[in-house]
Amino acid sequence: MDCQQQEIVNNLMASYREVGGINHVDCGNLPSKRTITALCEDLLQLLFPGFFSDEAVSSDELELMTTELVAGIRQRLNEEVRQSLRMVAGDGGDHAKAAGALVCRFMGQLPAVRALLATDVEAAYEGDPAARSYEEIILAYPGLEAIAIQRSAHLLYNEKVPVIPRMMTEWAHSRTGIDIHPGAQIGSHFFIDHGTGVVIGETCRIGKCVKLYHGVTLGARSFQKDDDGKLVKGTKRHPDVEDGAIVYPNATVLGGDTVIGARSTIGANVFLMESVPPDMVYAVGDQEHLIRDKRNAPGRKKSAETSDT
Amino acid sequence: MDCQQQEIVNNLMASYREVGGINHVDCGNLPSKRTITALCEDLLQLLFPGFFSDEAVSSDELELMTTELVAGIRQRLNEEVRQSLRMVAGDGGDHAKAAGALVCRFMGQLPAVRALLATDVEAAYEGDPAARSYEEIILAYPGLEAIAIQRSAHLLYNEKVPVIPRMMTEWAHSRTGIDIHPGAQIGSHFFIDHGTGVVIGETCRIGKCVKLYHGVTLGARSFQKDDDGKLVKGTKRHPDVEDGAIVYPNATVLGGDTVIGARSTIGANVFLMESVPPDMVYAVGDQEHLIRDKRNAPGRKKSAETSDT
Amino acid sequence: MDCQQQEIVNNLMASYREVGGINHVDCGNLPSKRTITALCEDLLQLLFPGFFSDEAVSSDELELMTTELVAGIRQRLNEEVRQSLRMVAGDGGDHAKAAGALVCRFMGQLPAVRALLATDVEAAYEGDPAARSYEEIILAYPGLEAIAIQRSAHLLYNEKVPVIPRMMTEWAHSRTGIDIHPGAQIGSHFFIDHGTGVVIGETCRIGKCVKLYHGVTLGARSFQKDDDGKLVKGTKRHPDVEDGAIVYPNATVLGGDTVIGARSTIGANVFLMESVPPDMVYAVGDQEHLIRDKRNAPGRKKSAETSDT
Repeated sequence: MDCQQQEIVNNLMASYREVGGINHVDCGNLPSKRTITALCEDLLQLLFPGFFSDEAVSSDELELMTTELVAGIRQRLNEEVRQSLRMVAGDGGDHAKAAGALVCRFMGQLPAVRALLATDVEAAYEGDPAARSYEEIILAYPGLEAIAIQRSAHLLYNEKVPVIPRMMTEWAHSRTGIDIHPGAQIGSHFFIDHGTGVVIGETCRIGKCVKLYHGVTLGARSFQKDDDGKLVKGTKRHPDVEDGAIVYPNATVLGGDTVIGARSTIGANVFLMESVPPDMVYAVGDQEHLIRDKRNAPGRKKSAETSDT
Repeated sequence: MDCQQQEIVNNLMASYREVGGINHVDCGNLPSKRTITALCEDLLQLLFPGFFSDEAVSSDELELMTTELVAGIRQRLNEEVRQSLRMVAGDGGDHAKAAGALVCRFMGQLPAVRALLATDVEAAYEGDPAARSYEEIILAYPGLEAIAIQRSAHLLYNEKVPVIPRMMTEWAHSRTGIDIHPGAQIGSHFFIDHGTGVVIGETCRIGKCVKLYHGVTLGARSFQKDDDGKLVKGTKRHPDVEDGAIVYPNATVLGGDTVIGARSTIGANVFLMESVPPDMVYAVGDQEHLIRDKRNAPGRKKSAETSDT
Repeated sequence: MDCQQQEIVNNLMASYREVGGINHVDCGNLPSKRTITALCEDLLQLLFPGFFSDEAVSSDELELMTTELVAGIRQRLNEEVRQSLRMVAGDGGDHAKAAGALVCRFMGQLPAVRALLATDVEAAYEGDPAARSYEEIILAYPGLEAIAIQRSAHLLYNEKVPVIPRMMTEWAHSRTGIDIHPGAQIGSHFFIDHGTGVVIGETCRIGKCVKLYHGVTLGARSFQKDDDGKLVKGTKRHPDVEDGAIVYPNATVLGGDTVIGARSTIGANVFLMESVPPDMVYAVGDQEHLIRDKRNAPGRKKSAETSDT
């Protein structure tokens, strides 16, 4: 079937010539998914020493282990950042020096990230009756993994590094179902329980001691388009959540002007596009909108919302 | 503890003899999850040349790289398809010839898949204010990965290949949280943003330029059973979505007769089992059904829908 | 940049000294994520012989393969359980004997788990018109993987093994989007379709022949706090679901006293905190709360629930 083999290849080569936009040939490396994966795994080891290494870590080994992790992360990140800066500059320049300095600033801020993550672990323990120990939270809570990666990626986002921060949070999204844009600003003591389906948009600002459950969307309400009908990018599009607010499962909160006030509670399955004052509880009405039918009773057909998707 | 070891093994062997249906012994290979994974990864490299290879790709190398990928995919797929045809035929026959011809037809249609995927990338860029570049979309948007695999698996579904198409879309589901049945028919310029929790059923027909957000279900309303009370399989069970329609997060749309008309918008958290005419906006009412309580005010208990799941 | 290297390391070392709670140094091994992954993969091979091995399995090889898998699982689990018992006892003791006996009891119950899983596969085939064969269900249905791991982890949960059961169900959660706490009690013939976003809490009790769709939450309504304002842990917080009940996509059911009666149906997107008698259908009202606007008609702005998250 060699002829067919050659014919298949020829058709693909023709497609590579004709279909633009989804080829990346002759334009230098892109950030590699595999490298971003290794990078995120090393970062978790550095942020939570002893939790993600297969062997027990003794304090004698700790500095050596740390030195090796730091060197490895810097080497990888220097290269990825350099490529990603070059991709955007499009000048074929080297950008090694800029990348190195940027990565140094990034690494220098990791202790501050650790201080925040310690408050996140505390918030999870205080916030979940099912949590038995700090170890369980660090080893088995997807929300902690997602916020650890997002807090790190946010540093690179602030340095205007293209693509890589988003690839990092997407690595966490793929593993946890939690999609936090690297641009989101998130305060201390942040806890996401379960987490699958959570979406936190690029321009969200989240205060301290905020708790979210799975399926919560903090999203944008609508597009702004310019005179050419193109989307305007980079405006404030997503809600703010003030200190101590709680948003329960599958609530959808939309809009760049929407503010959930301090200590307020948004109930499960609520849809919200208005701001909520502090110390309020907004919830779906007491099910007066629910239809309760005896199975096979008249009207059942009309209201039966069965599904086999 | 060897006695215990032998006892444990004996009990399991007894269970293998007694519990049917979940053993697969003496009946030849099944499609292997590991092979399907490698297959999907190679397909992504072939569909987006240069994006998922660790090294930069130059046009001189491109044909060689393509030839190797095509050969590898054909070899794997020939074997998997052969096994999967044999599994269904149950005749112990070889099926190598049929598998080879089928795989050739499949490979020959990949350029058409690439043409569609180029429109999907364009739709993502036009549709998401947070998207900064085509590269970011191809490297970090789960919706694109899911549709790339589904469009490929759909070709095998049309060839009536058992199990493998579903294993391919399930590979993507596991990585992206997006569950698109290989049977779904999907037009050009398709964009799923965020994507976690999206379910698109087997008999959905989706037009051009359709946009879905995370948590959207296009599902079936109810079962049809035959006279023996067995489910009737293979009927039209899932909705149609016409050109240019948008469905916002966590909307659930059910029913084989349900049609979302062209350019219509379905709001977030909407539950829908009726057809929507073109150019309409269906949305949850302006929260008149929301209960707004001052925390600890009378009635708070009644309506507070707090949760710690 | 070596000076910077040393400075970065020094700052991290200082952070390790100063920030408590998220370091694990000088305190022996923790259960390792990598080992838990290998353990879960081996368990699936043992529970479904022939389905997850790359080579076809003949009955002559079956006992040898089983013996090797059992030995490997016991060795891994003995070590992990020992560490995890020591972690909790905090006595630096060995705990090898207790771990070995416990793991033997665990392995001895796997045939019973297989008997339950056979009923789950049957329920999936009977319950999903898209299911073509048992093989497809075992190879491509995430719900089956999730329940297989949870039924196994539940045995270790009943043995009061810390952390490991949760790490096992979290491994499945990461792959399937289905988050079932190892404490949940689940009857035979259990089927979760699609599954992404399902959350089943620690104290749920689920009867026989129950069917859940993606996005269903069986969660807790509210916290109980002790006099010091600390969460009370280990009380009954999550709903019961009786035999033959069905819960459709994205329904949220909360509360430790909430019972879904036998054979009752809960419709898609329903929010529920009340008990449902047997043989009832509870569903969102016939959309009288839906607003239907002509696009760009007056009032559209007010009710348009568009989003780009």
